[in-house]
Amino acid sequence: MSIRYPNGKPYLPLPNESNQLKKQPNKVSYGNRGMSLEEDINSSNEYYLAKGIAVIHKKPTPLQIVKVDYPKRSAAVIKEAYFQQASTTDYNGVYKGKYIDFEAKETKNKTSFPLKNFHKHQIEHMRQVLLQKGICFSLLRFSAIDEVYLLDANHLCSFWSDQEMSRKSIPKKEIEVLGHQIPLGLYPRIDYLSIIEAVYFS
Amino acid sequence: MSIRYPNGKPYLPLPNESNQLKKQPNKVSYGNRGMSLEEDINSSNEYYLAKGIAVIHKKPTPLQIVKVDYPKRSAAVIKEAYFQQASTTDYNGVYKGKYIDFEAKETKNKTSFPLKNFHKHQIEHMRQVLLQKGICFSLLRFSAIDEVYLLDANHLCSFWSDQEMSRKSIPKKEIEVLGHQIPLGLYPRIDYLSIIEAVYFS
Repeated sequence: MSIRYPNGKPYLPLPNESNQLKKQPNKVSYGNRGMSLEEDINSSNEYYLAKGIAVIHKKPTPLQIVKVDYPKRSAAVIKEAYFQQASTTDYNGVYKGKYIDFEAKETKNKTSFPLKNFHKHQIEHMRQVLLQKGICFSLLRFSAIDEVYLLDANHLCSFWSDQEMSRKSIPKKEIEVLGHQIPLGLYPRIDYLSIIEAVYFS
Repeated sequence: MSIRYPNGKPYLPLPNESNQLKKQPNKVSYGNRGMSLEEDINSSNEYYLAKGIAVIHKKPTPLQIVKVDYPKRSAAVIKEAYFQQASTTDYNGVYKGKYIDFEAKETKNKTSFPLKNFHKHQIEHMRQVLLQKGICFSLLRFSAIDEVYLLDANHLCSFWSDQEMSRKSIPKKEIEVLGHQIPLGLYPRIDYLSIIEAVYFS
């Protein structure tokens, strides 16, 4: 029944304009936010998988299912469901035996990265992963200038904790110092494992 | 909008009888199969998380979304979606820095475990995880006698490969020899990490 891309990912039709997408930007934003960053990361993960370098997947979007129909002689149809905020980060997997866990976000800002891009649950999850000695970080894209940085979750969690008393965003200059700019290419598009290798394995 | 349990898990109403659940057992089986085993594992994972022992979660069920409505002044409603077969295993996470990955299945059989419980994609995923030196296994419950075994994915993949020439199920006697019976209790209900500790960390 289901339609998939050749890589096995589900085909998700984009909502059309009659769905009032433009009238409700706040309601649908988290479904589309960071889509191109997501595509680049998924493509990079497929490259890593095909080359036998790492096994890292995006988790499916959690949905609250309210109503399911079971038509005769065909597959179950979900007739009512809602998007839910994830309680963990979006990506995890394994590289050289180590647990890898990260969240990817982007901003149109040029000089700072707003902390409101992260949810409390995600930060809590990152702290739990750090306690278990997992490799945990965020990929931050400044979309206007197409620069992507890897920032260790220890730093991100510190900025998050400080935001009540201090800034609501992370200055790009601090990301440049504390984080690591990721080389962008074609195969893979966002080679974040080259940074992981250099930072955590050497 | 969404209703959740205190642990953040979504509340999923069970389909009622008018949904023809009983008339279509084959169509809905993979949605309910292993539910009580799943509950026991989720409960064990919550225990591990609360005690700071490990961070292991069940992945959300992948759904193919076909139609979404965006009503004015309320959340997006998914009006048509279908269950999809997962391309990975159901559970993964981190324990002492190591990547943990497993699938949980149960059978009513008493003397063997049918291999048809596993999908080809799941076996392929397990092989990829093993190549990356992740800790990968299956939890197998014999529900009639309430015994749960941990079987390393290396063994499971071998049985899977051999099934064309050999048996379509794994004899319980072989699982008893090659696997490890897991102590069942209350906190946690299925203490599979005690086996992981003994087998992979000592």
